[in-house]
Amino acid sequence: MEALQAALVEIVGSDHVLCGEQEMAPYLTDWRGRYHGHALAVVRPATVEAVAAVVRICVQAGVAVVPQGGNTGLCGGATPLETGRSVVLCLGRMRQVRALDADNNTLCVEAGVTLAEVQMMAQAADRFFPLALASEGSCQIGGNLSTNAGGVQVLRYGNMRDLVLGLEVVLPDGRIWDGLRGLRKDNTGYDLKHLFVGAEGTLGIITAAVLKLFPPLRRRATAWLAVPDPAAAVAVLSRLRGGCGDRVSAFELVGRPALELVLEHIEGARDPMSGPQPWYVLVELSDTHEQAPLEALLEQTLEVAMEQGEVLDAAIATSLAQAEALWALRENISEAQRLEGISIKHDVAVPVSRIAEFLACAGERLRRAWPEVRIVAFGHIGDGNLHYNLSKPESSANEAFIARTAEVNAVVHDLVHALGGSISAEHGLGQLKREEIRRYKSEVELDLMRSIKQALDPAGLMNPGKVL
Amino acid sequence: MEALQAALVEIVGSDHVLCGEQEMAPYLTDWRGRYHGHALAVVRPATVEAVAAVVRICVQAGVAVVPQGGNTGLCGGATPLETGRSVVLCLGRMRQVRALDADNNTLCVEAGVTLAEVQMMAQAADRFFPLALASEGSCQIGGNLSTNAGGVQVLRYGNMRDLVLGLEVVLPDGRIWDGLRGLRKDNTGYDLKHLFVGAEGTLGIITAAVLKLFPPLRRRATAWLAVPDPAAAVAVLSRLRGGCGDRVSAFELVGRPALELVLEHIEGARDPMSGPQPWYVLVELSDTHEQAPLEALLEQTLEVAMEQGEVLDAAIATSLAQAEALWALRENISEAQRLEGISIKHDVAVPVSRIAEFLACAGERLRRAWPEVRIVAFGHIGDGNLHYNLSKPESSANEAFIARTAEVNAVVHDLVHALGGSISAEHGLGQLKREEIRRYKSEVELDLMRSIKQALDPAGLMNPGKVL
Repeated sequence: MEALQAALVEIVGSDHVLCGEQEMAPYLTDWRGRYHGHALAVVRPATVEAVAAVVRICVQAGVAVVPQGGNTGLCGGATPLETGRSVVLCLGRMRQVRALDADNNTLCVEAGVTLAEVQMMAQAADRFFPLALASEGSCQIGGNLSTNAGGVQVLRYGNMRDLVLGLEVVLPDGRIWDGLRGLRKDNTGYDLKHLFVGAEGTLGIITAAVLKLFPPLRRRATAWLAVPDPAAAVAVLSRLRGGCGDRVSAFELVGRPALELVLEHIEGARDPMSGPQPWYVLVELSDTHEQAPLEALLEQTLEVAMEQGEVLDAAIATSLAQAEALWALRENISEAQRLEGISIKHDVAVPVSRIAEFLACAGERLRRAWPEVRIVAFGHIGDGNLHYNLSKPESSANEAFIARTAEVNAVVHDLVHALGGSISAEHGLGQLKREEIRRYKSEVELDLMRSIKQALDPAGLMNPGKVL
Repeated sequence: MEALQAALVEIVGSDHVLCGEQEMAPYLTDWRGRYHGHALAVVRPATVEAVAAVVRICVQAGVAVVPQGGNTGLCGGATPLETGRSVVLCLGRMRQVRALDADNNTLCVEAGVTLAEVQMMAQAADRFFPLALASEGSCQIGGNLSTNAGGVQVLRYGNMRDLVLGLEVVLPDGRIWDGLRGLRKDNTGYDLKHLFVGAEGTLGIITAAVLKLFPPLRRRATAWLAVPDPAAAVAVLSRLRGGCGDRVSAFELVGRPALELVLEHIEGARDPMSGPQPWYVLVELSDTHEQAPLEALLEQTLEVAMEQGEVLDAAIATSLAQAEALWALRENISEAQRLEGISIKHDVAVPVSRIAEFLACAGERLRRAWPEVRIVAFGHIGDGNLHYNLSKPESSANEAFIARTAEVNAVVHDLVHALGGSISAEHGLGQLKREEIRRYKSEVELDLMRSIKQALDPAGLMNPGKVL
């Protein structure tokens, strides 16, 4: 162990090898405080060569490597295991901007650059990088890639996977793969980058990436709609996309209980409608052209939707402040939920066409087993992605309910699976769902994943105990 | 061999096992007539179970399997080798439409459905499937996926890889992987579908896919621009995308020599400008909204571009017939080239920002070595993709030139590589570029590809002699 630490110091200098319990502590716990691990050291290399050297040292010593970015993940993917010998490898000092190519609409950055910094660099070049997350100020590009991050703009621009053209990766044997190509078309063999994106560091360590940039959005229109039920919300989505196409850049479903939590716990939150409605949709249109008549387009479509009974009421923001207030209702749901108390959370996806069926059926099954269950449902239904939080309104009853998380998960996840869905839409597997996924993935698929893991990391030292 | 044929007959019936030289002939040659292979049999299963059974029989017999779709590939990827024991497995009878889900914007079809049929099914559901190729009437979805097909709409919608959500694949051991998910978000482990897309059948056989559908395009504006040089074309592209965003759905560069070939060989072709210009761009804007003021948007942007000297002249189509005439100039280049005579063709990509440098530098190097070389350059420069055809104007000189293809390729491909480009942008490797790619891919990348091939197909029986 001392030899290992000395070897690490030789690579990155003593300032960047942390071994004391206290100085390692922030790196050994996920930010929700749900997972706590152990490590022989935390090491912070600043170059790809140093990352490669660290990996080689660890492999020689038979020590596991746990890559960590901004440590904002929700599934414990960046936290080392409690048992086992591992080194936490932080990418936060890899902060070079390798190239900005406006004509090619690409930005090449190292893994430790934060998402917010990428957004700002794009903006400064009159371009747009669409990934947007609550943690964008601290999450890092390497982590966004390793977890294939999602967020509110996926409907129009796709997940992180869709926003990358090339990668640089330190492989499990310490070699460096330079796949930093900035090409829209390249059909010269297997597409290796897609293997590493979303692999949560189990196949290698992403050290840099070529990201796609887009034309900036110069105009937006935002509206808060009341709809009778989730099926109507899906119908409105189809109608809007038919008329407005890719201009539909956000389409978020919010159930009445979710809005109520926000109205109760968040200062300044106001219901945009005069009375309670069963379901809401936050919709945003956006356009690159600053004179695009988005409000007119929106009104035109909503008029038809109201005639058809798909929309009960609508509030279109007439100022940026109003638009921000509507967005705050959506964005504060998680915080309001936290203030209300603990709940059993799910991050699931089903085909968009099965959203209504999922909500109806899940609600029925849960209420049958646990009467008075409170269902806080909201999410990116344009992508079929729901955040589905369950609790009992009374805290005494809630404790007993939370204790039965495994049973509750089985009800929700079995239904998701039966509807052709995914039990982790955007958060990944990490440690949290590593066991759970075996219940739903076919043996063939698990086998394929294991074969690839075995081929690339035969020693099993890359982020063990995650994903597989 | 007879036992193998009998076993195949047992699976698919005698009508669908071809063994005679004459009946096998169409399947043993690529459509350009450049490759000729041998096979023990051509077998045409109609279900995924039958495909799996055929693969198992072949594996037991140690016989290679060569999957074939519409047989329209340009690199010999679907033609068996001359040497070796193989069975050609045609997917053309797998023609079921498994599901059309308009609200989810997905279409699930089997591998043998043609691209044109998919386009029509989408249209009938008031949706749009954007992949468009010259061979769309006969190429099949399985082949489009296996070669990650490109075409003229990539700028807006991406390659075939970007148009698929899920796959069904028969693996090299005859097991079936059901990955037919229709989800926009699914972060539950390695993204296996991207391994099979573009693998040209070397890792398994794609038997069905869930394809993404889009809102239909209801309005288009088409223009033919004269530009002073390729750098100006790239500047116009940036300008257009800044103002019009994703509405820019095609941006095709055409060199004067390419247009001249069309004017000379294609009946009815007319130069849209009054005098010769050095370079042209065919640009198309499109929108889902039928009242979108595309012509105004185009004029507005072109006005500024003309003031800046980026555009010398412009002809905006005022009718569908005019738009089609402009498109015909672009689409007939390959045919005009064929009528003119043989040439050395390249399908390359560089970052969009390096297009001008590539064209200037390649031209200079080629003219230095081969004075009087005729360069017919055109392509999808919105994607950095150029088709770059070289010949000598006089047929006697051309023969000697063609004989030196390897040297010519080295000049072009070395430059492409130095500029961070790809020597196969959209056609794949197949047999054609299998050797050539080893000159340019790093040993690390080739090793990664070999590891994956070894992990999934240890016996090496899936389409041997292609890609790797």
